Parts: sequence; structure tokens; C-alpha cells
Amino acid sequence: MPQSEGSRVTIHDVARAAGVSRQTVSNTVNNPERVSPDTLDRVRAAIADLGYHPSSSAKSLRSRRAGAIGLELHTLGTHNATTAPVLTALSIRAAYHDAHLVPFGSAEGTPMLEGYKAMWAGRLVDAFIVAETHHGDPRPPWLEARGIPYASFGRVWDDPTFTRWVDVDGAAGTRVAVEHCIDAGYRTIAYLGWPQGSVVGDDRRSGWVAACDAAGTASSPVHGPEAVAEQDLDAAIAAAGPLVDLLSPGDAVVCASDVLALGVHQVLVRRGLEPGRDIGVVGFDGSETAAMHHLSSVAQPFDAIAEESLRLVRAALRGEPAPTAGSLLLPALTRARSTRLHRKEP
Amino acid sequence: MPQSEGSRVTIHDVARAAGVSRQTVSNTVNNPERVSPDTLDRVRAAIADLGYHPSSSAKSLRSRRAGAIGLELHTLGTHNATTAPVLTALSIRAAYHDAHLVPFGSAEGTPMLEGYKAMWAGRLVDAFIVAETHHGDPRPPWLEARGIPYASFGRVWDDPTFTRWVDVDGAAGTRVAVEHCIDAGYRTIAYLGWPQGSVVGDDRRSGWVAACDAAGTASSPVHGPEAVAEQDLDAAIAAAGPLVDLLSPGDAVVCASDVLALGVHQVLVRRGLEPGRDIGVVGFDGSETAAMHHLSSVAQPFDAIAEESLRLVRAALRGEPAPTAGSLLLPALTRARSTRLHRKEP
Repeated sequence: MPQSEGSRVTIHDVARAAGVSRQTVSNTVNNPERVSPDTLDRVRAAIADLGYHPSSSAKSLRSRRAGAIGLELHTLGTHNATTAPVLTALSIRAAYHDAHLVPFGSAEGTPMLEGYKAMWAGRLVDAFIVAETHHGDPRPPWLEARGIPYASFGRVWDDPTFTRWVDVDGAAGTRVAVEHCIDAGYRTIAYLGWPQGSVVGDDRRSGWVAACDAAGTASSPVHGPEAVAEQDLDAAIAAAGPLVDLLSPGDAVVCASDVLALGVHQVLVRRGLEPGRDIGVVGFDGSETAAMHHLSSVAQPFDAIAEESLRLVRAALRGEPAPTAGSLLLPALTRARSTRLHRKEP
Repeated sequence: MPQSEGSRVTIHDVARAAGVSRQTVSNTVNNPERVSPDTLDRVRAAIADLGYHPSSSAKSLRSRRAGAIGLELHTLGTHNATTAPVLTALSIRAAYHDAHLVPFGSAEGTPMLEGYKAMWAGRLVDAFIVAETHHGDPRPPWLEARGIPYASFGRVWDDPTFTRWVDVDGAAGTRVAVEHCIDAGYRTIAYLGWPQGSVVGDDRRSGWVAACDAAGTASSPVHGPEAVAEQDLDAAIAAAGPLVDLLSPGDAVVCASDVLALGVHQVLVRRGLEPGRDIGVVGFDGSETAAMHHLSSVAQPFDAIAEESLRLVRAALRGEPAPTAGSLLLPALTRARSTRLHRKEP
């Protein structure tokens, strides 16, 4: 790495400008916890104003920080509604944990652990955040066996003793969605979910079942019909057609994802019905797709996910024992036009 | 940073397993250019198999690599159709350049240069890739003045002497879109763009004008009507309604973005018309939104953007002079159902 020609500013210049000793400038850069907040602000302002950057020996700096945290990005994950917001939230919040993120990629078809092995072998990261866990996921046991610090966004499904994870309570999310529909005046609450067997999908469906059971009675049930579709707009439209056939104005559909909710939305629009006014629709993920189409949606708490993941990684980096249980976060409903019911006067 | 307890594998173990000297293992990790490709593969395989990672002294490794490249992520950019794919492509390709990406975030409302100043002052990165440039952008002059290595994804509009940029030729993209529509049998090609004055939007519109001029004659013009909308689905739907009123079956609309194209799509669907069969629609960006709704779209060449950005950064890191001109890449059309015309037999 060449020295950049423009960096002629020295630690003396910064010390003079900020009215502090050189040691204080050094501490500001290397050990900020030893410097008072006021001084820290003043020295950092001088550093920024003068364009000072510590060179040569200061390169070891990087290794003194709490950590370079690896996060794998998949080509396939590019279109995942949660990838970009989680990555952005992690990048922004990492600075508060005196850490930074190092995303690394694997081309499609690469065996799952290859990227992790290479990043670790090259000592490019001090820890990992593992995302999109699934049953039989080889990554948590591989990391645990080597004592590599990590946190998982997504439960470690196979081993309850692995507790360094944060996840979103899907059942709580669909429960809130059903309750919101009932409060908004919808009568029967249908469900469009994913085919049985996906851990996330089954979790989300269970909240719909529980909330309908809790709100309905034998004489006045809340349970509507249900249908399933893969996570694909065409499949969602195909499944939503027959489901909507079974509904009456004033009913609503809670969905396992925003893509499925968009399928219901498109079927309603094609039939000249207005989502919300005629049939309610709630998605899940709080994605841009939901926002664009004014779909109410159960939103993933991205900032809280990022904060908790970073807290878990830091604890692992400090060598603290794993917590007694994983962190299950509550999602919150984003209300939009698709659950605004305008009942016609009788 | 604690040593991970699981890492008991030593450089001896790797040397023995790969049948090479310890120096060769060290070179594989620290100076791979000194090792033959075959040996490199063999030693890296042994490193991966054994789970070896160089510890303690090897930490200086990081600073020997070609670079930690900072990339700013905005909270607002989370929903930008190009942010996630560019970031993923950069992360995957960085490894081939012996570099890695360090995304950093700025909360909304933070002055533009703050994050750059902090990352540079803390020596957390060796270079930057600047994205989403605009007129009056303070970043390129700030970086140039300090001799900080960087490349820009997006032209540096204000100073033609700043040539370390890669961008996509928007006019070429819309030209290809118009030509595709004419080839597919559409007659009049309308345009839905952004309000005049955005550099990217004006560039894209100019390709539509040029291609219609080139393909049409006085007696048989290709130019259709045009309308403008902000980059927002509601605005696009509102603008697309009156535009579609002016069209006949067999006409097409080329759009400045996938969001605008989705607006046209939604208007057609609401009127019981089928995009493609009745009215052609082409978007721009190659986003997931386009893919979901089967919209033909001018796709940004994400891999080429990433590769060229990294090449420019490496050259800057090596202290090479700036190239004589920026790199303008050609986008390519992704064909889908929205430009499949089925003319009724007369």
C-alpha cells in the first residue's frame, strides 16, 4: 500500500489544533475509552478538519479493535428482502461496537463452508455473523468445534445448547397481524402460507392458528380458509385466486410473506376489488415491496436484530460463556392501506 | 481478541500435510505471488482441511493485502434496487483482487463526508469505492485533494479530469430497449421518464429520442407520447394512466426505471389489458421487481461494474496515474413477457 501523497498532517498538528498532548491524540485513535467525551470530540474534530490519518505503525490499530466481523453474502441472497436492510443496519451499528463488517461472497454452487474457511485461514476476520440458518446447517457446529467467535441471525435449529443466536418470533408476528385485522373490523381471517415443512413458515402459520382460536367462538369463528404457495409471485397469484373465491367483502388474508401478500393484492386488483376497503391483506417482512404497494406488513426489527447480533459477537470475542437461551425478538406491524376497511353503511 | 481455543493446528501440520516447507506455507499465506499455482492450491487445501489459521504475528497480514476498501451504505439506499446486487458482486469479486470490502454506514442526516473522515482517520480502510455520485458531490474532490485511493461507481460529473469512475451508459440502454420493441413488432414507442434535470434520467431519455429518430421516418414515425413521474409507484401509476390513454394495442412504453415500468404494468392490469400481448413495457435496472412481474428490463451489468471498480481501486492503490477517461459500460436487455406481442390476425 503506497502512502497517499496528501497526508502531510502529523500527530503534532492535531495535538496543537486540539490543544492536547500527543499521547491524548494517540489515545483518541487507539484507546478512546481512556479519553473524556469532550476531549474525544475536540480531538476527533481536529483529526477530521486537518485530514490527519495515522500512518505506518498505526496499521496495527486494526487488530486492536473489537473485531472484523465476517458476513457471507450469497448471489442468491441478493434478492432476499432482508439481506440489504440487515447488512445496512449491521454496518451502521458496528461502529458503536468498535467493530466493522467484512462481507464476503461465495459464487453459486460453492460448498457452504468454503468461504468461512478461507476468511478464517487468511485471518481476515475475528468473528462471523451467520445468517439464514436452516435444519442441518453445517456452519454453527463447525464454528463451535473450532471455538471461532460467532453469532447467528436465525435460530440454530439442530442443537439447543448453541444459544448464540437472535431470531424473530414469527408466531408472535402473525398473531399481531390477526389481532390487528380483527380490531380493524374484518370478520374472517384467511391464511396464505408456504407449503408445510419450512421451519419459518410453520412458525408463522402457528401464530395465525393461535390468534384465530383465541379470538373466535364456536358460534362466531374467526378462522378463514387457508392456501399455500411457494415464495414466488406467480405461485402466489395462482393460489390466491381460489382462496379469494372463498371470501366475502370484509374478510382478510394474513400471509407468510410480502411476496404472498402481493399475490393476493394482484388478484384483488385484477378483479376490480380494492385491497383494504374490500378485502384486507397483511404481509410479513416489512419489505420495500410491501411499502410500494401499501401493504400492511409484519416488519422485522432490523436495528434490534443488528444490535443483538453485535452484542452476542462481542461477548463471544471476549470469551464469555454462551447465554442460557437465544434471543427471540418481537416484530411489529406496519399499518398501511391494505388493512383499512370501509364498511358500506347498511 | 482472544485466541480461539479450537485452533491447535500449527504451520508444521500444514507443511507436513501439503508436503512443503514451513516457508512455503508462510508464503502461501503472506506472499502468494511467490508460490506456484499448483503448490498454492495444495497448501490452501491443507489449510482449509486442517482448519489452520495463522495467529498472533500473522495479524499484520491484513495490512499486507491489496486493501480494505470502504463502501458507504445509506439507510436510504437500503431500498435502492442496485445497492444490494452491487455490494454482493463487489464482495464476491474483491477476493480475486486480494482485497476485501468494509461497508460503513451513516445514519440519515449525517453530513456526507463524516463517515469517510472517520474511516480514514481510524485507518480502517486503504481506499474507498464511492457510489451514487451526483452534481456537486463533495466526495471526489475531497478524496482527490488528499490523494486517497478511490474509484467511483457513477460518473464524477463536475470535473472531467477525475476519471477514476465506472458508470453505465444509460442512453445506450434505452436505445437497445427501443430497438428491441421495434424488432418485437411494436409500432409506436412511448416514454415514461423522470422529471427533467436528473443527470441519469436525462441520459436515459436521450437514448429513447435517438433510437426513435433513427428508426422512424416522417411518414411512419416511431416516437410515441411521453410523460414523467418521480421514482415512486403511486406517481408512476398516476402518470401512466393518461399516457396509456394515448396508446393503441401494439404500442409500447420504454421507462426510465423498473418502478416506472411497474406503474405502467399496474395500469394495464387494472384495465384488463395484458402487458406484452396488448401493450409492451420495458423497465430499466434489471431489478427483482422487474423479474417478479415479468417485465423486460435494461439490466445493469453488476459483475462488470464490480470488476471495473476494483480494477480502478487497485490501480489507485498502486499509485498509477488516473486513466485518460472513465469507463462507460454497456447494459444489456433482459427479455420477459412484457415485450411479447401477440398480434391478432386481421
